[in-house]
Amino acid sequence: MQPESRSTALSGRIVISIDAMGGDRGPVAVIGGLAEAAGRNPDVEFILHGPEEELTRLLAKRPEVAARCTIRHAAGVVTMEDKPGQVMRHGEGTSMWSAIESVRNREATAAVSCGNTGALMALSVIRLRKLPGVNRPAIACLWPSRNPGGFNLMLDVGADIKADAPDLLQFALMGTSYARNGLGLARPRIGLLNVGTEEHKGRAELKAAHELIAGATELGQFDYVGFVEGGDLPSDRVDVIVTDGFTGNVALKTGEGTARLVGDFLREAFNAGLLSRFGGLLALGALERLQQRIDPRRVNGGVFLGLNGTVVKSHGSADATGVAAAIDLAFRLAKSGFQERLAARVASVAQARQDAAEGGTTNGTSE
Amino acid sequence: MQPESRSTALSGRIVISIDAMGGDRGPVAVIGGLAEAAGRNPDVEFILHGPEEELTRLLAKRPEVAARCTIRHAAGVVTMEDKPGQVMRHGEGTSMWSAIESVRNREATAAVSCGNTGALMALSVIRLRKLPGVNRPAIACLWPSRNPGGFNLMLDVGADIKADAPDLLQFALMGTSYARNGLGLARPRIGLLNVGTEEHKGRAELKAAHELIAGATELGQFDYVGFVEGGDLPSDRVDVIVTDGFTGNVALKTGEGTARLVGDFLREAFNAGLLSRFGGLLALGALERLQQRIDPRRVNGGVFLGLNGTVVKSHGSADATGVAAAIDLAFRLAKSGFQERLAARVASVAQARQDAAEGGTTNGTSE
Repeated sequence: MQPESRSTALSGRIVISIDAMGGDRGPVAVIGGLAEAAGRNPDVEFILHGPEEELTRLLAKRPEVAARCTIRHAAGVVTMEDKPGQVMRHGEGTSMWSAIESVRNREATAAVSCGNTGALMALSVIRLRKLPGVNRPAIACLWPSRNPGGFNLMLDVGADIKADAPDLLQFALMGTSYARNGLGLARPRIGLLNVGTEEHKGRAELKAAHELIAGATELGQFDYVGFVEGGDLPSDRVDVIVTDGFTGNVALKTGEGTARLVGDFLREAFNAGLLSRFGGLLALGALERLQQRIDPRRVNGGVFLGLNGTVVKSHGSADATGVAAAIDLAFRLAKSGFQERLAARVASVAQARQDAAEGGTTNGTSE
Repeated sequence: MQPESRSTALSGRIVISIDAMGGDRGPVAVIGGLAEAAGRNPDVEFILHGPEEELTRLLAKRPEVAARCTIRHAAGVVTMEDKPGQVMRHGEGTSMWSAIESVRNREATAAVSCGNTGALMALSVIRLRKLPGVNRPAIACLWPSRNPGGFNLMLDVGADIKADAPDLLQFALMGTSYARNGLGLARPRIGLLNVGTEEHKGRAELKAAHELIAGATELGQFDYVGFVEGGDLPSDRVDVIVTDGFTGNVALKTGEGTARLVGDFLREAFNAGLLSRFGGLLALGALERLQQRIDPRRVNGGVFLGLNGTVVKSHGSADATGVAAAIDLAFRLAKSGFQERLAARVASVAQARQDAAEGGTTNGTSE
């Protein structure tokens, strides 16, 4: 345990635990993100984990952030190259471990880190433990979409590399909680990712999951649109896309890579020739609007679901704006009481399934 | 067997067998595609399969196409809703079946169809049969990329829903043949799609495939760059991306969906406000160049690999330009002797693996 360098944050506010280290751009970008997020959310406070001397020096230049921060000293840093197993055994004393510890001991409602995803998931699972009834935790990410809110949700995008049918049902339930509390959708529409929308297609576990999810809509308080395909990820006929972590991770990175490719081609096209450049200049507002809608920093923040506590993974390469988006998300979820609602939803469906298996009747309460 | 309505195409030219029916836009779009492709390739001839009366009427308006076409009557049509199993049992007499038959009996070097993918694959497998040494056929597609040629290759994008390690090795070999003969790359760089580039990540079959592919580079005449991620699909550090058909299909459709989303957002952005519209007008050339680089019609044509004959699947919604791109691809592959080279490459590596398993020495000839 590291010594506290200040008292715990004041009560009555939402406290977010921040791993200051481990991102590609170091603690300067993280503290820049705290400043942006603090400016938008007057009710937020931070516990900032990392080397005390360095953080104190950096915060001295940002008195408005320092006033909302408690520094918690942690000398070690988890690098992007560290293997999850090593970090689990030897990670105590790192800023990442310390950041999770603040959620574990309930000083903070949620943690945010830009560090190594595998290590962060491994530490989160061993320190926070899985929620009762959850077999596999999942990482959920936002996806630019044609829906009015501008985003769809997809999970799992990489907590694990597989998922069987009951896992996929749990992802549907956890995604429902996130969509209700994070996106404000009262009754989210769930889709199950497959290679075709016909029921005879796809893997056996997907057919089983199809039945399970279709049978849980009332108790889980969601709608089920059935199978969806890769082209439906930005679609307005679905809000939450459920898949295993291998497929979800490939899809996420494929989508990001494609958007980046189109963006690069667009820039090249506008730089080829005087007329195009002049046109691009006049249309600068349009291009900026486009940039905003597909800016990956706006959708920054993979949320770890299924643990006793909320952990938000920011992109390793996130700048201040990206870090701020991840903090905003953690704050919004923390404020909504998302963690408790998710636990209750998973538990109620697990109970109903157990009752059904034991021959009891399913009690479809929908509060 | 359907009666021939004309004599077989003249010798000395490349004959492509065309399924005129089954696409969303009907035979008019297909015949438009024949016209475009015939204009570009003076050495191509077609056998056109479908209802004779209708095709004769349509071709009467296109004498320049009619001169290069033999009509082969087939009254039946495979619809997008037909299940592959039904088509396998009752598909004789359809234009799709007939189009494959022309490749089977060596009247044509390759077949092109815009119809139902599952049915086309099922018919291709039962009528053409798998190449000796091939366990799972694969569908390969082109992907816009940062490479000088403008395209990368990915397989399998949906022939099957799984692939084990030896299948993935075969995909690497078949992808190599396609890249050499279709894209003109003497020694293509192969990557294996995974959720991370580190060797300790991913599923067990991927680790086994990693070893197999790394051990076959000399005999297979390719380079191996190791694991790649979804973001690398358009990358210039790889030419051929190998994956199972489930993951590849999700990635393909995710990429297409993302490009479409960005394109729609771009149009909306340019239509919002007079200045943007004027700028967009001036930059029309730039926008058209962009459109061309990401136009899905240019990369139209999934090639079925691993069968005794080449079959190219065009998008169901392809217009004349899309159909023409698929025909160009079939023509290029047919002209290069791709089919025989692919068979030889797969056979030589299968033989070497068998020799090694039997304790013989691997004879790494590289002609």
